[in-house]
Amino acid sequence: MSDRDTRHKHAMQRLKAHVDEKVAGATEQRGLLLVFTGNGKGKTTAAWGTVTRALGYGYRVGVVQFIKGLWECGERERLAQDPNLEVAIMATGFTWDTQNREADTQACREVWAEAARMLADPEVYLVVLDELTYMLKFGYLDIETVKRAIERRPSEQTVIVTGRNAHRELVAMADTITEMQEVRHAFNDGLQARRGIDY
Amino acid sequence: MSDRDTRHKHAMQRLKAHVDEKVAGATEQRGLLLVFTGNGKGKTTAAWGTVTRALGYGYRVGVVQFIKGLWECGERERLAQDPNLEVAIMATGFTWDTQNREADTQACREVWAEAARMLADPEVYLVVLDELTYMLKFGYLDIETVKRAIERRPSEQTVIVTGRNAHRELVAMADTITEMQEVRHAFNDGLQARRGIDY
Repeated sequence: MSDRDTRHKHAMQRLKAHVDEKVAGATEQRGLLLVFTGNGKGKTTAAWGTVTRALGYGYRVGVVQFIKGLWECGERERLAQDPNLEVAIMATGFTWDTQNREADTQACREVWAEAARMLADPEVYLVVLDELTYMLKFGYLDIETVKRAIERRPSEQTVIVTGRNAHRELVAMADTITEMQEVRHAFNDGLQARRGIDY
Repeated sequence: MSDRDTRHKHAMQRLKAHVDEKVAGATEQRGLLLVFTGNGKGKTTAAWGTVTRALGYGYRVGVVQFIKGLWECGERERLAQDPNLEVAIMATGFTWDTQNREADTQACREVWAEAARMLADPEVYLVVLDELTYMLKFGYLDIETVKRAIERRPSEQTVIVTGRNAHRELVAMADTITEMQEVRHAFNDGLQARRGIDY
């Protein structure tokens, strides 16, 4: 074995010991609260990736789409036939298109009722609250209502919240938080949003 | 209309003007190079979310899984029947388990040949090179080979590269880069990786 190969083997042994130690230290099993936030691309996309993953094992999944509901959505189309997936959509579209606080608030509360039902259902393994953060920011929903529903959910249920500027109380509750930071975005360089990639 | 509603309307009008301006400024249409990097959860997940999205429109997709190939993978299971999806797997598993540089290099080059074929195929709309960054870091592949294959790909093809510590030359080439930063990870608080959520 060459020196380089030997060094590689030793480095990998140290890495394996580190990984094994971490795995052995993780003993608690329950549903998680994940928050995907930050200004970069990938928050909603990672949520849909997780939906696909959970459906792959036959788990029941609920997705609630705040804001982007009227957009074309390739992943929704792809998975729509799955009997284990339920999608609830806030049907007003972007809040900067409607420009109507009262109508948006009403639409938000209607779709939140669907979310609350999913969050109370022990048969639902994963609930995605996509773009929920904006509902709190705009005051369409209050944080106490949201917190209570998430706290009281069945212990095996995982919840994913996506959106920029996650409310500090949601962040405080979360088990895992990833900040998707924009290092560069093609859109800012004049490249169009791409079908099947960006939406 | 109340004062609050009026203020909201004006804020949304400004936001809409900003969004419209950005959309109007984005005029170029071509395949993109996206890099999902950083130490947080969501890189591979966002890649699979994009795969689901592209398949939703009937596009052909190729996924090459470096490193994690032997893991159970819910999203692969979920989408495996899709005739538009091809998955190539580096079949040695985690490099810290094999601890064998020579065997890993060989396995990596074999699966890279599949990647190179996809990157040359104009019928493939999206190619995911999952965990490619580690192959470059460990020296299993050289950056020039990878750069050339990505640069010469068909102009309509989008490529997603995932993994920590993306090579600076890949970063320099990328159209969109998101750094998934770990703010908190449940695993570090003793919570087990969860089936259908983490894998």
